[in-house]
Amino acid sequence: MKLVTLSTESGRRVGVVDASARTVRDVSDLLPAGSGMLEVIEGWAEFGPLLAERADSLPAQPLESVQLLAPLPSPRRNIFCVGKNYQEHVVEFGRSGYDSPDRSEAMPEHPVLFSKATTAVNGPYSDIDPHHGVTAELDYEAELAVIVGRGGRRIPRDEAFDHVWGYTIINDVTARDLQRAHKQWLLGKSLDTHCPMGPYAVTVDEVPDVTALLVESFVNGERRQSAPVKDLIFDIPDLIATLSAGITLLPGDIIATGTPAGVGIGFDPPRFLSSGDVVEVAITGLGAQRNRVA
Amino acid sequence: MKLVTLSTESGRRVGVVDASARTVRDVSDLLPAGSGMLEVIEGWAEFGPLLAERADSLPAQPLESVQLLAPLPSPRRNIFCVGKNYQEHVVEFGRSGYDSPDRSEAMPEHPVLFSKATTAVNGPYSDIDPHHGVTAELDYEAELAVIVGRGGRRIPRDEAFDHVWGYTIINDVTARDLQRAHKQWLLGKSLDTHCPMGPYAVTVDEVPDVTALLVESFVNGERRQSAPVKDLIFDIPDLIATLSAGITLLPGDIIATGTPAGVGIGFDPPRFLSSGDVVEVAITGLGAQRNRVA
Repeated sequence: MKLVTLSTESGRRVGVVDASARTVRDVSDLLPAGSGMLEVIEGWAEFGPLLAERADSLPAQPLESVQLLAPLPSPRRNIFCVGKNYQEHVVEFGRSGYDSPDRSEAMPEHPVLFSKATTAVNGPYSDIDPHHGVTAELDYEAELAVIVGRGGRRIPRDEAFDHVWGYTIINDVTARDLQRAHKQWLLGKSLDTHCPMGPYAVTVDEVPDVTALLVESFVNGERRQSAPVKDLIFDIPDLIATLSAGITLLPGDIIATGTPAGVGIGFDPPRFLSSGDVVEVAITGLGAQRNRVA
Repeated sequence: MKLVTLSTESGRRVGVVDASARTVRDVSDLLPAGSGMLEVIEGWAEFGPLLAERADSLPAQPLESVQLLAPLPSPRRNIFCVGKNYQEHVVEFGRSGYDSPDRSEAMPEHPVLFSKATTAVNGPYSDIDPHHGVTAELDYEAELAVIVGRGGRRIPRDEAFDHVWGYTIINDVTARDLQRAHKQWLLGKSLDTHCPMGPYAVTVDEVPDVTALLVESFVNGERRQSAPVKDLIFDIPDLIATLSAGITLLPGDIIATGTPAGVGIGFDPPRFLSSGDVVEVAITGLGAQRNRVA
């Protein structure tokens, strides 16, 4: 199932998408009042079968006629993120000099984990704020994101997928100058609008082999990144096991798994984003997002 | 005013403390049903005067007879934290070798900003989980934390205190081995129970000069840290201005401002925490927390 969050005159609504027909059904009337995507995920044991059975009976609207927000527009906490998790990106990042003060092209021995603030979350087709005067080095990072279903702690690798509710796309937009200057990455990763998410939250049953998905980005139509999820240095079970060893994961938690080679600082000279640029991020089966830099 | 969150048989309740009389009044019946500390802060323009006027009419219980949770037991997002923000701590941290891969004793030119996951939040007198098998290098960090009242973006230095609702104490408990191994600090800072908070959320009117407050920690009664808030390298207006330049701050956001010299890795050899140790953190006027390592 592909779920979306709709922005409507009566507030946020949950929708179920038929991607081939390019239609969406507003299913919020099937759910308890006030339920958003987070409540749907928390109550999936009940709501999953309900939506599967009854969504089709509701009227379909053209997908082009609605306004999509991020699937989880207000996450319950910061987004877990992973740095340096594709080999060629580790090399380009180390070479760029932006991995201050390390500048290492060596593969990480442990996942590099940081977070993006909730207020960075942005819609799949909304503008990216360039934050002129705050950053002059705006970059893109196409990423597969895991959405946690059942929470838990000490989740072993071989049970990790039992805790995955689904997947979505994240553009881990980065202010490279802030990332470098502040050493820890929170600020450079968290500027408002710098986390386009979606368009869909796609349930696991639609993704039989997540490692086969291709993660791609395009700037003004030019392909910049393209790598399969199987190239992850630390795979999804590694990440869930590492995080949950000491942190209780919660339903609705989002884990952005890292970006492949081909970001702006991978070029010499770097190719930063400018106002008017259009960034697209696409992942097999998860749709595509398209954000203009304002 | 000193506010607390009480754990009771009927769930979480908000209390107002008389610290000199060592009593607390459960004021939740004065508030809209289901209101916690976050809602009190968001609606402070209304609830502040209400509580000031009517709390005294409610029955007082001995503070010793209630169970306190963290003032904000479930923050709306990760806690903003600042590393290397007291000069002598920068030196001890650089010298320790734990500031991998930098190992620099140089003062930071910009605030080092990271976050602690919400699930790390712990009560002011609750046990700290040593996470045996996950970390072998448990350390303490006494910190003053700012609680944001009115949210906003692009808050200038000279308006920063207009956005401060109050203060509390945080022990930024750190798994040093994870902090070093994972390069970015999120994981090493976020293990469950590793953010004791409170006991009180203290409103700004009780703190005429925050720079005069003394931040102290004690391990098994031995003083380890002691420094005034005026020693901060980046002061509270700096931190609020830097964060809000590109991140919208929200009511209830928590900013832990950094720790003074005297943490466990400041000693040679390091003095890590062990099961049975008792860590106390005290700040002038904000009370004291006392947590045993389980």
